[in-house]
Amino acid sequence: MGFVRRRVAGWRWEGVAPREYADGAARHVLIGRSDGAGDVELRYFRIPAGGASVLERHPHEHAVLILHGRARVRLGDREEEAGPGDAVFVASGELHQLTALGPEDLGFACTALARRG
Amino acid sequence: MGFVRRRVAGWRWEGVAPREYADGAARHVLIGRSDGAGDVELRYFRIPAGGASVLERHPHEHAVLILHGRARVRLGDREEEAGPGDAVFVASGELHQLTALGPEDLGFACTALARRG
Repeated sequence: MGFVRRRVAGWRWEGVAPREYADGAARHVLIGRSDGAGDVELRYFRIPAGGASVLERHPHEHAVLILHGRARVRLGDREEEAGPGDAVFVASGELHQLTALGPEDLGFACTALARRG
Repeated sequence: MGFVRRRVAGWRWEGVAPREYADGAARHVLIGRSDGAGDVELRYFRIPAGGASVLERHPHEHAVLILHGRARVRLGDREEEAGPGDAVFVASGELHQLTALGPEDLGFACTALARRG
């Protein structure tokens, strides 16, 4: 059954406990498998200025939407900058990492298949 | 291959032509099948105050993030309000509709499986 996941003050949501994800970074699962999602998980990541997401590659893709702050986006051997409202597509098997350029923390919404290998 | 889809002024993106979706509403495909996405499509919908998305149900789920404006969200036979930063999960087979309560236009990001029935 569907639901509304309410944002509270700042970038926090009712019923969502942030989990440490990388050094100082946090992952908030807004819609996940434990909520009944079978297609897609929707997560919010917050990365302190100077920090970065894990450099990784995997078969599933990501569709990302930057919400606040600025990022250096690594996609394979390329790097680009991105800011609020920019979307990022990470292809299957592509090495990727988002680095928070500051001064503000980087925040982004990120999708991943709920059923992934 | 991945890419950054850049937002330009307002809620518009480079290389994305808005398509009329319903009466006065527009759909912008930020990441779609024609971009190489095989997992998830990421779309931005803009609905003028007083307007609404199509009332529909289908097997695929949605993960929605409200970006601006206020919505009345119909999920099955329930209705709730939602605003910026709130996420909405639409379950498989669930009747759903988002109505723009105004005064601002409603804008939201919406995911759907790229390969869906």
